[in-house]
Amino acid sequence: MIGVFDSGFGGLTVLKELLRQLPEYDYLYLGDNARAPYGNRSHDSVKQFAEEGIKYLFGQGCVLIIVACNTASAQVLRELQEEYLRKPNVTDRKILGVIKPIVEEAVNLTKNNTVGVIGTRSTINAKSYEVELHHLNPKLKVCTQSCPLLVPLVEEGWIDKPETRMILKKYLRSIKSCNIDTLLLGCTHYPLLMKEIKKIMGRNIKVPSPGKIVAASLADYLSRHPEIETLLTKKEKRLFNTTDDADRFKSMATRFLGQTVKDVTRVDIGG
Amino acid sequence: MIGVFDSGFGGLTVLKELLRQLPEYDYLYLGDNARAPYGNRSHDSVKQFAEEGIKYLFGQGCVLIIVACNTASAQVLRELQEEYLRKPNVTDRKILGVIKPIVEEAVNLTKNNTVGVIGTRSTINAKSYEVELHHLNPKLKVCTQSCPLLVPLVEEGWIDKPETRMILKKYLRSIKSCNIDTLLLGCTHYPLLMKEIKKIMGRNIKVPSPGKIVAASLADYLSRHPEIETLLTKKEKRLFNTTDDADRFKSMATRFLGQTVKDVTRVDIGG
Repeated sequence: MIGVFDSGFGGLTVLKELLRQLPEYDYLYLGDNARAPYGNRSHDSVKQFAEEGIKYLFGQGCVLIIVACNTASAQVLRELQEEYLRKPNVTDRKILGVIKPIVEEAVNLTKNNTVGVIGTRSTINAKSYEVELHHLNPKLKVCTQSCPLLVPLVEEGWIDKPETRMILKKYLRSIKSCNIDTLLLGCTHYPLLMKEIKKIMGRNIKVPSPGKIVAASLADYLSRHPEIETLLTKKEKRLFNTTDDADRFKSMATRFLGQTVKDVTRVDIGG
Repeated sequence: MIGVFDSGFGGLTVLKELLRQLPEYDYLYLGDNARAPYGNRSHDSVKQFAEEGIKYLFGQGCVLIIVACNTASAQVLRELQEEYLRKPNVTDRKILGVIKPIVEEAVNLTKNNTVGVIGTRSTINAKSYEVELHHLNPKLKVCTQSCPLLVPLVEEGWIDKPETRMILKKYLRSIKSCNIDTLLLGCTHYPLLMKEIKKIMGRNIKVPSPGKIVAASLADYLSRHPEIETLLTKKEKRLFNTTDDADRFKSMATRFLGQTVKDVTRVDIGG
């Protein structure tokens, strides 16, 4: 199975594109809703929670895990990857993040070498997007802005509310003044605000869809790694695990995915 | 020591009044910031987290614990109290909540027998305020409204922002139309919005301070229970434990308490 790990619901925007582009595989989505959101938490907490999630997903038979949560990708992905690389007999287990493919796309898209990044406080403070962008192109100018209130607004379903528009405008003001031509959504919740974000930024600013990029990148990865691809089961299974209430997850997931979600199980991954 | 348990920072508004009214005692505050906020979580998660917090505080030598978190008080206080009552040799250990004293004050304050309650989704859904109010006065009319975005807004420090005022107005609209004369703040974060809430509700609506009520109620309790009071140490110690980053806690706690907070330690209470 392909495991998709997220702090809560946000990663479902990534899963949605995976199901569209790579529908043949089996997926197990794990949302750590009992401890979400990760966006304001310390490095140590995010590391502990992500480690528990990864361990759980491998334990359930996942061969490849996508850490859809930007906060976890930004803060601890490299540490987790190195940890698993050190272990013996795990050449058939892979952990992939979402930041690298998004950054590669941004470097291709930008014409004026000026890129904006919005994300949670924790993601922005970790500077992973900046580091990866500069790694590919040291001359790039990067403007970042943390937007801590967007996750609660999206989780409340306040997508079209005037208050959300006002808060978005406030957050995007400094980014707009940077003269960027490409804006990266460094949080899996933000694609749900795509329409409003594009309206505020204007037609000339490219705002690529993180889900689409991650799914395309995975398709590319699997075509280059047949030794991993052959290990993946293909029965079009879609399983959902959450660390909090299964019913609430079911209704939220149905909204995020735009299709009815059935197989939701509450699981305990801590300790 | 007196233990004060909260999901995060909110309970500091209660501690502030405890320190003002009962400064002679030693206090240990525990904020479960790594898993905050509790307001949207399921009963099972809140129960597990609160149980771990209570166990930790008793283990640290607390004799009496105040569950400052409304969500935990509303959802699981009675269960926790009964659990500890069943254990042998625990007559010298007490767990007190915040809802009962606030409800008693409301019943005294209301003249038209119509009371409003605002809180997190979880607190409002648990109906504990309604049950306790009707227990004291079955004729009371109770109007409730969950306000899930207020906690993130307060945690961001967006106290005076126009967006916060707009969101508050939206939440309070149905409560205003109920013709209440008393409004209960069923969440420890809301006192930080007291000024705005009073402005929106108007001069004729009473909005009692939860912290003041809880502190006065504890003073009354201790005067009636000398067998507990004598067990409390009185060296004016103020200790702070958090399950997440100590530095962030220090700066937030300093803002909530209005005085510099020093002794902050990160602790692990789970599992």
